[in-house]
Amino acid sequence: MIILGIDPGIAITGYGIVKYEGNKFTPITYGAITTDTKSTMPERLMILHKNLEELISLYKPDVFAVEELFFNKNVKTALVVGHARGVVMLTAVKHNLGIYEYTPLQVKQAVVGYGRAEKQQIQQMVRILLNLEGIPKPDDVADALAVAICHGNSHLMGELFRVK
Amino acid sequence: MIILGIDPGIAITGYGIVKYEGNKFTPITYGAITTDTKSTMPERLMILHKNLEELISLYKPDVFAVEELFFNKNVKTALVVGHARGVVMLTAVKHNLGIYEYTPLQVKQAVVGYGRAEKQQIQQMVRILLNLEGIPKPDDVADALAVAICHGNSHLMGELFRVK
Repeated sequence: MIILGIDPGIAITGYGIVKYEGNKFTPITYGAITTDTKSTMPERLMILHKNLEELISLYKPDVFAVEELFFNKNVKTALVVGHARGVVMLTAVKHNLGIYEYTPLQVKQAVVGYGRAEKQQIQQMVRILLNLEGIPKPDDVADALAVAICHGNSHLMGELFRVK
Repeated sequence: MIILGIDPGIAITGYGIVKYEGNKFTPITYGAITTDTKSTMPERLMILHKNLEELISLYKPDVFAVEELFFNKNVKTALVVGHARGVVMLTAVKHNLGIYEYTPLQVKQAVVGYGRAEKQQIQQMVRILLNLEGIPKPDDVADALAVAICHGNSHLMGELFRVK
């Protein structure tokens, strides 16, 4: 199974594509889709959409995995991130790909085995599980890889985490 | 100029297409795009996207006009509405249509001439300006027509309200 983990945002969307086979993870590619603050919001959403479509066409993921948004962020942040998440979801469904959503707690438990793990512990485990030389930067990329790993470790629970 | 006014939402997106020519408004069509709560969020975004594309291909609007979101709504509402707005913006930009955004105050001033107008006054003015027999229902449709009228009345100010 090829999993595209995503940490959506307007300025930076982290992505991580990993192969999960026989209980083992192999990184395929990872990085960040960035947009210029000088561009308009619609233009930035279009850049996000086009880059995601390119990743889909190049790497043919089977599913999208995304982290649930923290609700302690403020209303303006939620609205802006919502725009990016809406575009991510539309892009996935246009390509008939399922989207699975995990809470930060689920990601921590799946990656580190401990729900209160620190950000740095998660990043170290992502590095170890994927056999990478360093921790992928920026944080959004490591976060995207973490949610992809979480989906691999959780996929036996089937449709439980599919976005409703 | 043909203006597509939109009041985006996941369950109901109101739309109103009006022609603005020689300082006069003519309604072309209006209604609501609704989605079933039984569908998943990605499916609902896809329905919204497809219906908007159909409106664009049928009525060939020149611009999209949308109301700025009230920021007194809660974080969860903002996130969900953000998903719908993101899809609206992506759909517009894919078709090379500009999007203009107006605050509720601007809409009230443009439609009623009074920034503290009540919802019912706005709806009555929409009915009168468009020469309709009744007030379009649900409210989302009247709101969409109101923001379309607002754009017509404000377009001389050019790019001032274009979404950044």
